[in-house]
Amino acid sequence: MSGRNRLIYMPLGGAGEIGMNAYVYGYGPEGKERLILVDLGIAFPDMDSTPGVDVILPDIAWLLQRLDRLEAVFITHGHEDHVGGTGHLFGQIQKPIHARKFTANLARRKLQEKGQDPKNVITAAPFPAMIDAGPFQVGFLPVSHSIPESAALVIDCPAGRIIHSGDFKIDASPIVGEPFDPDLWAEAAKPGVRALVCDSTNVFSKHPGRSEAEVAPNLKPLVAAAKGMFVATTFASNVARLRSLAEAGVASGRSICLMGRAMRRMTEAAVEEGILTDFPKTVSPEEAADIPRESLMLIVTGSQGERRAASAQLSRGKYFGMELKEGDTFLFSSKTIPGNEKEVAHIMNNLSEMGVDVVTADDGLYHVSGHANRPDLETVHKLVNPQVVIPMHGEHRHLREHAKLAESLGRTGLVVPNGTMVDLAGNAPKIVDHVETGRTYVDGSALVGQFDGVVRDRIRMALNGHVVVAVMVDDDDDILEDTWVDIRGLPEVVRGSAPLAEMMEEHLAGQLARIDTRTAGDDEKLEDLIIKGVRKVAQDEIGKRPEVTVLITRLAAE
Amino acid sequence: MSGRNRLIYMPLGGAGEIGMNAYVYGYGPEGKERLILVDLGIAFPDMDSTPGVDVILPDIAWLLQRLDRLEAVFITHGHEDHVGGTGHLFGQIQKPIHARKFTANLARRKLQEKGQDPKNVITAAPFPAMIDAGPFQVGFLPVSHSIPESAALVIDCPAGRIIHSGDFKIDASPIVGEPFDPDLWAEAAKPGVRALVCDSTNVFSKHPGRSEAEVAPNLKPLVAAAKGMFVATTFASNVARLRSLAEAGVASGRSICLMGRAMRRMTEAAVEEGILTDFPKTVSPEEAADIPRESLMLIVTGSQGERRAASAQLSRGKYFGMELKEGDTFLFSSKTIPGNEKEVAHIMNNLSEMGVDVVTADDGLYHVSGHANRPDLETVHKLVNPQVVIPMHGEHRHLREHAKLAESLGRTGLVVPNGTMVDLAGNAPKIVDHVETGRTYVDGSALVGQFDGVVRDRIRMALNGHVVVAVMVDDDDDILEDTWVDIRGLPEVVRGSAPLAEMMEEHLAGQLARIDTRTAGDDEKLEDLIIKGVRKVAQDEIGKRPEVTVLITRLAAE
Repeated sequence: MSGRNRLIYMPLGGAGEIGMNAYVYGYGPEGKERLILVDLGIAFPDMDSTPGVDVILPDIAWLLQRLDRLEAVFITHGHEDHVGGTGHLFGQIQKPIHARKFTANLARRKLQEKGQDPKNVITAAPFPAMIDAGPFQVGFLPVSHSIPESAALVIDCPAGRIIHSGDFKIDASPIVGEPFDPDLWAEAAKPGVRALVCDSTNVFSKHPGRSEAEVAPNLKPLVAAAKGMFVATTFASNVARLRSLAEAGVASGRSICLMGRAMRRMTEAAVEEGILTDFPKTVSPEEAADIPRESLMLIVTGSQGERRAASAQLSRGKYFGMELKEGDTFLFSSKTIPGNEKEVAHIMNNLSEMGVDVVTADDGLYHVSGHANRPDLETVHKLVNPQVVIPMHGEHRHLREHAKLAESLGRTGLVVPNGTMVDLAGNAPKIVDHVETGRTYVDGSALVGQFDGVVRDRIRMALNGHVVVAVMVDDDDDILEDTWVDIRGLPEVVRGSAPLAEMMEEHLAGQLARIDTRTAGDDEKLEDLIIKGVRKVAQDEIGKRPEVTVLITRLAAE
Repeated sequence: MSGRNRLIYMPLGGAGEIGMNAYVYGYGPEGKERLILVDLGIAFPDMDSTPGVDVILPDIAWLLQRLDRLEAVFITHGHEDHVGGTGHLFGQIQKPIHARKFTANLARRKLQEKGQDPKNVITAAPFPAMIDAGPFQVGFLPVSHSIPESAALVIDCPAGRIIHSGDFKIDASPIVGEPFDPDLWAEAAKPGVRALVCDSTNVFSKHPGRSEAEVAPNLKPLVAAAKGMFVATTFASNVARLRSLAEAGVASGRSICLMGRAMRRMTEAAVEEGILTDFPKTVSPEEAADIPRESLMLIVTGSQGERRAASAQLSRGKYFGMELKEGDTFLFSSKTIPGNEKEVAHIMNNLSEMGVDVVTADDGLYHVSGHANRPDLETVHKLVNPQVVIPMHGEHRHLREHAKLAESLGRTGLVVPNGTMVDLAGNAPKIVDHVETGRTYVDGSALVGQFDGVVRDRIRMALNGHVVVAVMVDDDDDILEDTWVDIRGLPEVVRGSAPLAEMMEEHLAGQLARIDTRTAGDDEKLEDLIIKGVRKVAQDEIGKRPEVTVLITRLAAE
């Protein structure tokens, strides 16, 4: 058995959520496979499950333990959920990162921000060019998406060819970047494809996807009809949309001002790499201040309601000297990613209070998705005609639905969630291992494990409040009288009269006066007793069970 | 001026959010208006803004200060955002509560739960019957919605008639309860209507609303085609839907089992009040355990992903002996209310992992909205033909859009957000006052004010972590050496080596060794110094700025 070469596939992130993509491929004898990593993305935290966390990374511990077997990293495109982890994790990985030039530009910036040498990012030419990586040859197969230069990967090894779709849509006129090229894909599929590892995001969307080119004709009349300032927000990485928006502004005689760090970074990278050659001239916010509002268009970050992005700032008041007012128009040229609804609605309501007319893309006029819908997935299954379809880039329900779609088209569809290792070398794919996977939190400058208890404790304090008790014990194991209680995140005064902390102090004083020195002498027993006492008062008085921290100080004999 | 009688309208909740409805009307000389309250609802908390809170109530302080002028409370229908506050607040209000019989049944249960006399809830006959309440006569005008016996209110006083729509849709065949009756509405409008205070929920939905009767024909083939157990979740208060679901089950030879407290409470109330006369016979979960799964249909609570409701429990494993498995079907006969997407998706993914087929209402086949869409609002504006339309039951953006709609149809549209008092007695409506409004949190058994800082502190602990420091000062104002630091919600160990708490203790020890007795003798200065010290270490080591609590114990001379 061990003499046979395996072709393994194992997602460490991205097959169980939409975000933090990280897929491992390996070829070689069991346990000695030479490895490549496809994508290294981040996910975004939320208050419900990850309060205080800055960024979520896939837990790549499995890979870090096998770094000697890792040949290289390949990044399909420049979205944060695919490239966002490179900066955070390159320090530990230290292997060449391959990407097409626009993506490489973004990855280099990320390495630089973390003090790493950007030369570790190598610009790849598109397929049919192939890059050697141990037993693998990898080609970047251009594909349309909502960011320039997205690529599927053609992954060859002695056991056959795999096509890893990356994020994609079928778009014949993507405005910026290459259209989807069925002939090129057919050529890539020609030698026979063992597995298509495929984007599942829009598997529940039943209509064929729409082209980026459909948006621009709708934007022009909208901008032309607007009276005051026109503000548009969209995903900064959607360079095609930025261009359509800016051109609609220029057509209405407006000067274009880009606001928000990501907006500038993306356009800068696109210009540097020669992707964006004819973007309208822009003005700075300072210059914009002198332009009459009806001659101005702002294109801003924050379409997902991010608190510190330009959209949210503008909805709260002045931002870089700009201030919206009655008669202005604000366009969300974007969809709201599930989970961000409240934040986006909050901005819309603020704008409404200012008298700003808010226009959304709910009718489909001002936004199109970047992912292949169900009929488009069918098209690609047929075009690639793989033996096996392995859905990725989706929650479990997306993966399952996509696998069922593959089966309904007469192919094997295999759900391979994060941490599941499948061997594709034999006649039929075979699940060969399960590995612990999870998430790593970037929290300030620290990395925190998902199961370290840090975030769990934060959630508990947020739900239950936190009571702190300081108690002193002298060298005879007698409790000193001044036991202190401090509460945080609980009502200070109960029913308009007694302060809660004082009631707890009183209760503890009574309790501690009665205990024997055996209990007083044992930190654990003492702590237990105090926690119970505090919780009893809290339960009786306010019907809650707070978190409790007890600080016991033992005075040494002098 | 003061001799003239005013007809005032002021929302205390519901005009600025979808939730916690509470609208005040008054008639009389300025400052002496006799008042009525329409609806007294709750809103639901979330982790982002109200962690740990159980229920949100409108802040009715303004009304409580004028209780001697309050005549009565009128509840339009039995949804929690309209009736949910009665139990919590009746103790403070102590005025008669009027409602139609089904709503009254629910309100009585709420009073009873809080130990209040349910006789304070008075069952109202429908319009043209009118109830006297000081200078007001109020009639319950039946209207279709997604719960039985919803009513608009016809509110008469010497200054004219107001129609307060409550929540409504235009449904000619609502399955359970009265169809929308345009003739009755025309009759109510006939004497002339000064103001229509009107539901704004669906003002952005451009197509005419659909009837509840459209759902049942889609349910039958779906249930009939299902192989294993069939589980359906919907809003428990949608009694019509419960009936359609149960009938689809029976038609496929399935026994019906209701699961979840709200499901039982709602059907019980509907049966008690004679609204639900022919609901199929149900079986208990215990009985259901003996029925083959292909002959069973569960109708369960938790369509919004609520953690403790039946849907979530079933998605996690066994619940009352029931357990889902491969081949079962789970239908969400509901829409996901914005903000609940992640919780609902979480359940769907759990079910997907079990191999359960999840069916949603995304196609519109298995759910219809309970609110009037934009064309339906136009219909009602025309039918009622008021002088003024005042949008309510909406976020600011809904209110503004609805007012614009009214203006576009040639009527005055007036945005009156929470806390704004408008006088409707004169020829033109006039804003006469602004009152502080807000939210009151039910937190365990305590009531907490929105600005009390309790929830703010919880959020800060969740975002930043909490460091607790205990320091002792002797009677000479010397710091004792054993300063204790305890951390919660922060990484215990930094960069794999030094424990964070110890690093803080060390830093503080160094700092405190150098201070003079003036600082040591001043609680505030000492606390300040310690907080700064702790934050410096945290910033340097983990890049965070934690919350800090300092407990200073001063030892008295013995």
